[in-house]
Amino acid sequence: MKCKVCKEPAVVCLPSHNAAFCPGCYEKFYMKQVREGIRKRKLLNRDDKVLVALSGGKDSLSLMYALAELDYDVTGLHIDLGIPNSSEKARAVIEDFCSSRGFKLTVVEMEKEGMPMPLVKKHIRRPICSVCGKVKRHYFNRVALEQGFTALATGHNLDDEVARLFANTLRWDQAYLSDQGPVLPAENGFAKKVKPLYRLSEYENANFAFLQGIPYHHLPCPYSGGASFTAHKMLWRDLEFKSPGTKRSFYEGFLDRGAPAFASFHERKAEEVIACTDCGCPTSAGVCGVCRIKVQLDRALKDEGA
Amino acid sequence: MKCKVCKEPAVVCLPSHNAAFCPGCYEKFYMKQVREGIRKRKLLNRDDKVLVALSGGKDSLSLMYALAELDYDVTGLHIDLGIPNSSEKARAVIEDFCSSRGFKLTVVEMEKEGMPMPLVKKHIRRPICSVCGKVKRHYFNRVALEQGFTALATGHNLDDEVARLFANTLRWDQAYLSDQGPVLPAENGFAKKVKPLYRLSEYENANFAFLQGIPYHHLPCPYSGGASFTAHKMLWRDLEFKSPGTKRSFYEGFLDRGAPAFASFHERKAEEVIACTDCGCPTSAGVCGVCRIKVQLDRALKDEGA
Repeated sequence: MKCKVCKEPAVVCLPSHNAAFCPGCYEKFYMKQVREGIRKRKLLNRDDKVLVALSGGKDSLSLMYALAELDYDVTGLHIDLGIPNSSEKARAVIEDFCSSRGFKLTVVEMEKEGMPMPLVKKHIRRPICSVCGKVKRHYFNRVALEQGFTALATGHNLDDEVARLFANTLRWDQAYLSDQGPVLPAENGFAKKVKPLYRLSEYENANFAFLQGIPYHHLPCPYSGGASFTAHKMLWRDLEFKSPGTKRSFYEGFLDRGAPAFASFHERKAEEVIACTDCGCPTSAGVCGVCRIKVQLDRALKDEGA
Repeated sequence: MKCKVCKEPAVVCLPSHNAAFCPGCYEKFYMKQVREGIRKRKLLNRDDKVLVALSGGKDSLSLMYALAELDYDVTGLHIDLGIPNSSEKARAVIEDFCSSRGFKLTVVEMEKEGMPMPLVKKHIRRPICSVCGKVKRHYFNRVALEQGFTALATGHNLDDEVARLFANTLRWDQAYLSDQGPVLPAENGFAKKVKPLYRLSEYENANFAFLQGIPYHHLPCPYSGGASFTAHKMLWRDLEFKSPGTKRSFYEGFLDRGAPAFASFHERKAEEVIACTDCGCPTSAGVCGVCRIKVQLDRALKDEGA
């Protein structure tokens, strides 16, 4: 197989694009997907101050690398969850990555915030992945707003987006279908959120990270029994295998023709958002979910001490 | 396993309804699904004159039986396609079924209409299943309008509807999503179309036909290499197996929350329908697709004779 562009031996084969690439041309292809994805859906402006959420995995590190290459003003944000034998490794990967490339980095330590995940897991009787996601999104937004960032970028890839869209479509969830997309404008106390990798599959990101020599953290979280959406992702892997390009056309088709049909359901949801009486962050209840978790943790620790 | 209703031994097990039934209670369950389906989505009025499209398969014969049981004024319509070793068998099953139960029946013979399918297959360079479907829909509508019927009922089941909805959703086809549903009102030269079996799966219809002693034609058409939608139907079989009830909630969820979002795209499509200059039936071109096929056939036969 030869590179579609320069005819040198190819190393990456992409049936969905009916193409194969050598390492150099693959980097150009990847960067073009990010650049065009940002331009086509108006994700970022040239003067945006971008906070990039870094987990230490292939997607978030590739995102940071690509946005910096495209000359955006980027700062990394890592949430150190305080999980033994896991969090310190992810954090070290991110700190090395950022310092070696001169990237700015902010780290929020859940230990210092009084909410290390082992404590949350022990005392909060809800699925840990759901609580952890809530806490991370809370701090992403809070740091972005408090430190004056105009956009929060996350490494969600095409597979993440398709699995989520499919789940929302199976339920025909009007509110979720009204605001799924690679850009959510700033409103109601939320920073603008963007997903610049929405055109790139997990496989494409893994190849990019590997070929660019980005060392990433790839051990699964010890607390997740199995990744969410797994069954749907397998279903989509089969669909994509039989008809290459189906994932992309399903997702981009939704953005072009599905999302506009559900747009009117967005306003109704937005009206319900108010400020948390404790921390001021946006919530639908009086006290936000994260502040409520803090209260529950404090109570549990007091009971334990008593 | 015991019948959920009367505790006699069950013969049909339906995980999607978390229930099992004996033959007598299954008939009641089935009839209730048809009755409630008609009521909930306003498919038929008590004074509707209903033309029931009969292929001779389990779905269409079960539909005819159920609508007659529910005291609707029903007449069968069969299109005899003129396919050797197939059409005569289907027609005989339908004629026996209708005469033994005193049902009115109209048969349209494609041989007499100058369009037997073997001739169409030989001379029309398009997928035969697509052309045959077009011809059948044409005559369904034409007979309904010419003979004063107020509704045309077809035996589409939940699996048919889910496979079609899924294909339309994968493409986010706004026009098709705007008018998929168990009832299409009369408009623009089209009779009202209803699908009273939209809540019942293929499996549920097969069980009903079997338990009611309805002999049905179940050989596949010799012209169809493989049924359309097959890959999607298999995907949905797996989804349903893992989460019983997913098909029903996807389809009914669409009717409740998806279809309204796409409703505005229906008018735009409807505006484009005009009357065929040859036969007067509705079409988007000057001469309708079926009249164009007739012209092509006439030309091919003349060329052969020359």
